[in-house]
Amino acid sequence: MKILVVGSIAYDSVETPYGKRENEPGGSALYFSAAASFFNSVNVVGVVGSDFDTSKISFLKKRHVNFDGLYVESGETFRWGGRYHTNMNKRDTLFTYLNVFEDFNPTIPDHYKDSQYVFLANIDPDVQLDVLQQISNPKLTVLDTMNFWINGKKDVLLNVVKKSDILILNDEELQELSGHDNLVNAGREIIQLGPKYVIIKKGEHGAMLYYNDRFFISPAFPLDKVIDPTGAGDTFAGGFLGYLASANEMSDQHLRRSIVYGGVMASFVVQDFSFKQLQNLDKQSINQRYKEFKELTIF
Amino acid sequence: MKILVVGSIAYDSVETPYGKRENEPGGSALYFSAAASFFNSVNVVGVVGSDFDTSKISFLKKRHVNFDGLYVESGETFRWGGRYHTNMNKRDTLFTYLNVFEDFNPTIPDHYKDSQYVFLANIDPDVQLDVLQQISNPKLTVLDTMNFWINGKKDVLLNVVKKSDILILNDEELQELSGHDNLVNAGREIIQLGPKYVIIKKGEHGAMLYYNDRFFISPAFPLDKVIDPTGAGDTFAGGFLGYLASANEMSDQHLRRSIVYGGVMASFVVQDFSFKQLQNLDKQSINQRYKEFKELTIF
Repeated sequence: MKILVVGSIAYDSVETPYGKRENEPGGSALYFSAAASFFNSVNVVGVVGSDFDTSKISFLKKRHVNFDGLYVESGETFRWGGRYHTNMNKRDTLFTYLNVFEDFNPTIPDHYKDSQYVFLANIDPDVQLDVLQQISNPKLTVLDTMNFWINGKKDVLLNVVKKSDILILNDEELQELSGHDNLVNAGREIIQLGPKYVIIKKGEHGAMLYYNDRFFISPAFPLDKVIDPTGAGDTFAGGFLGYLASANEMSDQHLRRSIVYGGVMASFVVQDFSFKQLQNLDKQSINQRYKEFKELTIF
Repeated sequence: MKILVVGSIAYDSVETPYGKRENEPGGSALYFSAAASFFNSVNVVGVVGSDFDTSKISFLKKRHVNFDGLYVESGETFRWGGRYHTNMNKRDTLFTYLNVFEDFNPTIPDHYKDSQYVFLANIDPDVQLDVLQQISNPKLTVLDTMNFWINGKKDVLLNVVKKSDILILNDEELQELSGHDNLVNAGREIIQLGPKYVIIKKGEHGAMLYYNDRFFISPAFPLDKVIDPTGAGDTFAGGFLGYLASANEMSDQHLRRSIVYGGVMASFVVQDFSFKQLQNLDKQSINQRYKEFKELTIF
């Protein structure tokens, strides 16, 4: 089944306790695609500047990631710089230059419009809404967002939330959007807003899926070394939707497995800078870690 | 199999967003016993003042909790007062009056000395060491502690840690004792200190068991209302050791189930003030929630 992702493509400069990297490819659309492409083909919509070195993403093309929706504009690619604290749970943003991403309001290529699975990465809700209006009749829409939009464009965001099937956010964002500290009450509140499913990303504490007034909970994989957490959330989303689209069935079992595959992919991406780890990964290692996830919680 | 618990017995005064209670019975030994007694008989060693109303714990006697090791000293019972913040993850201690608990250094009754399972609740490591020296040959010793002792009496504490089979602490305490932020490295470090097993309590994020260089992870049960988190950690320990002692076998399966029963019991105790919820609980509700725990993580 076809997956469409609309999101950012960036050059990231990152400092972690394990080192420093400058102008490495990143952004939600690339992390998502790098993970999802192990399970399913992906149609990317994004924008880069004329400075973007496409050879950096050629490995994705080999994995059936379609870049027909990649717009190259004159100007510079979106740049983000951040520094992680020792325990990796907190980071400071050092700079954000939107550059060509500032006026990103893409036309979805015609041959993308029948994509059944849509991931609206964390971008301006106005753009998310516009994208949704261009898609014929998606089977499943997954929406990501952040505090910046919850505070700044709540009305439009709520409109997009209403049209989405799955809302994916972290615990802080969930509390902010729902107005509830308590996860059960927060989950119930979101369901009232439209989506059937809520995925709560909790970083080192794993992820939760809320639906039908109950939870599925998956831990994060305990790693002795987290090199660079950048992109973990979008990689999670890629593993999740990649597996789900390949299963193409919203059964309880497939949903739960999708969450675990999300965690599996996120556990890999943080083991190196940028998406280097996803670049060198194979399906066998993914399946091996999936089994290790099972061992983590079975009793 | 006999369980021995040595810990505090207190009058707690607690304020949470759901209300205020004054001088309700509490303390590690009582919370532990209230949970463990659903699975196994328990021998309590503790001290109260002449003001302690033993009718408050008569329900425990009916459940085979033995109070022959309860010392009644002239003076007042240990008193603790605390106020929880809105999200229940943080609390302020309003007062701590050790009273008769200050000079607690108990003689273990002779007919307790063959207890096979020992829980050393969070008390002065000197007392913990002295207790261990009075016990003949326990099959399994579980040790709890806190930052106060990690900072103040590290040498003695490390001596007790060395003699213990299972160390149970929260993530902050683990980091402080091990010197590692990372849970995998922290777990490995603790194993070097003596214990075979480390249990990491993570509050709303559940609990982890580390052994043989791997983890078992169990979530906390999502509740829409947490009334009073006081005693959740000791209740967890009671469910854990109560089940494990009744199984009387350190197999992988029993260890994992013990952790889940710990979480089950903790999920009940926080649903009301003091241990009211444990007082009215029955085995059927416990087994029902155990099944619900399974549903939380199975995939």
